Amino acid sequence: MNTVPDLTAAPPLREPAPVPLPGFDDVLAAAARIAPHAHHTPVLRSRSLDALAGCELHFKAEHLQRAGAFKFRGACNAVWSLPAATAGRGVVTHSSGNHGAALALAARSRGIPCHVVVPHNAVATKMAAIRAYGATLHPCEPTLAAREAMCAQVQAATGAELVHPYTDPRVIAGQGTAALELLGHDGGFDALVTPLGGGGLLGGTAITAAAVAPATRVYGAEPTGAADGHASLQRNARVTELVPDTICDGLRGLLGAPNFTLLRQHGVDVLLADDAATVRALQLFWQRTKQLIEPSSAIALAVVLAQRERFAGQRVGIVLSGGNVDLEALAGLFAHA
Amino acid sequence: MNTVPDLTAAPPLREPAPVPLPGFDDVLAAAARIAPHAHHTPVLRSRSLDALAGCELHFKAEHLQRAGAFKFRGACNAVWSLPAATAGRGVVTHSSGNHGAALALAARSRGIPCHVVVPHNAVATKMAAIRAYGATLHPCEPTLAAREAMCAQVQAATGAELVHPYTDPRVIAGQGTAALELLGHDGGFDALVTPLGGGGLLGGTAITAAAVAPATRVYGAEPTGAADGHASLQRNARVTELVPDTICDGLRGLLGAPNFTLLRQHGVDVLLADDAATVRALQLFWQRTKQLIEPSSAIALAVVLAQRERFAGQRVGIVLSGGNVDLEALAGLFAHA
Repeated sequence: MNTVPDLTAAPPLREPAPVPLPGFDDVLAAAARIAPHAHHTPVLRSRSLDALAGCELHFKAEHLQRAGAFKFRGACNAVWSLPAATAGRGVVTHSSGNHGAALALAARSRGIPCHVVVPHNAVATKMAAIRAYGATLHPCEPTLAAREAMCAQVQAATGAELVHPYTDPRVIAGQGTAALELLGHDGGFDALVTPLGGGGLLGGTAITAAAVAPATRVYGAEPTGAADGHASLQRNARVTELVPDTICDGLRGLLGAPNFTLLRQHGVDVLLADDAATVRALQLFWQRTKQLIEPSSAIALAVVLAQRERFAGQRVGIVLSGGNVDLEALAGLFAHA
Repeated sequence: MNTVPDLTAAPPLREPAPVPLPGFDDVLAAAARIAPHAHHTPVLRSRSLDALAGCELHFKAEHLQRAGAFKFRGACNAVWSLPAATAGRGVVTHSSGNHGAALALAARSRGIPCHVVVPHNAVATKMAAIRAYGATLHPCEPTLAAREAMCAQVQAATGAELVHPYTDPRVIAGQGTAALELLGHDGGFDALVTPLGGGGLLGGTAITAAAVAPATRVYGAEPTGAADGHASLQRNARVTELVPDTICDGLRGLLGAPNFTLLRQHGVDVLLADDAATVRALQLFWQRTKQLIEPSSAIALAVVLAQRERFAGQRVGIVLSGGNVDLEALAGLFAHA
């Protein structure tokens, strides 16, 4: 038995084919579908952070989600959405980060195979985590073309279903369940803030907020070193060329096409923070709450701290996206502060 | 008005005068006394850590206690035990670590002055934290003699009550309330494990366990580089000379005299871990739970992981003592692993 796919077939998959946008019904269905598998994470408060920010902060603790990030919601929804007849062929994705680990764990929860295409120079501990959840790793050259080609090969060889990290509508709907829980826990928010990378979490949040709390403003928090989302909304055209330079390793992806459409539809604004501000927010959050969040989460606190006037006296919900800190990179991280 | 004390009076206070040992009644009284001020911290579980340890671990989360450590319990009990007639003179201690901050916050909760004697080379961020809680800092030379002399001076000048970090019976009784909550939350423990420095937490835990769960074994976890407690119990005589060498900055103090007596009375055993094992346990705990505990807490997990046979299949309670990690020292910390 050879699980290594044939490398000579199929052309690279540059851009996923257009997909229907998910709606609030899909978020509700996702919530029911993932409930037996995902954690209903707590909402955390801190008096001292409220005092520093000049507003009332409610932190949705997705760093306590299974596999350590909100990504499990979308991955789990995609995996459990598969028809029984084809689910056995498994799922495939290209992500060496939180989505890869989340999809591996979600597949294991259903007992189906998971294939993860990773650049051969990916961090060893991340690859080990994905393997520990039972996925098969497929190393490739560290280029987008090689990654997508390998992904297509695995699909062709196994019949596995591609689950894109943030453009897949099942993924976007799943990510929207975090905001659904947050809005159900503590209502009456003036604003919701989530990190912005590819736009899966922010898109899902926008769908949910529009349906259950239309008066609540939705904001994305994006690194100045990977500000394609901000630029895309300014120009009203998606920026597709950018070399990201940020410590927020979860936010280096480009805003996806359906995600861009969702952010425009819902009038989402994007606020920027540079890495120094993010590291300051990270240290502050660690010190005050003893919760180990990753830089890609801390950026949401960073933009709120930087925009005191905008949020003064408001009730603000922040989705802490994850806690998968690369401990070995910590020394370098704090050198940014 | 001059709040700087006269430096020429009173001899150094080398060893506190003998004090009565606290009993379980004192722990119960402490629990009632601190209830309005201290957090009833949660008990955390982790399936993956249970699997790794081969036993069932229940973590009492004192890193989520006010001021970030169990120390607030003892400090709060001492402060609120003071008679109304003399409380206004305040409290004094010599500790640049968690006890200093805890006493400052406890004093603020009662609206009385707090004086903290600190070596002038103490970490700036720790001194800032103590000052932020409203205490007056008294810098001194970084020797035991200078510290105790300064403490005596402050007492003489202000009438403030000395609250020793771990020999004070009010402090020991207060620390025993953590185990009281843990045993009340999840009963039927085979073992309780707490870190061992001066023996305030371990002594209070032993008193509580003996009263409410006499079949539960009580263990201290001590660094090999500061193993005076282990040596004292082996020799049946308190070791009073030791130059500590450990990353567990909260466990560098020598076992106190009343604490030694309590550990002997209750048949407490001490298990050792070196710093490399503690850092591995710390990283593991951070990765699996996203809870930012300090090395002095992680050592309790380290000894359980190192003694698989002793704890196999047991229900084990671990008191996570605190989460005040010196983030700037992190790089050096991980160099130990």
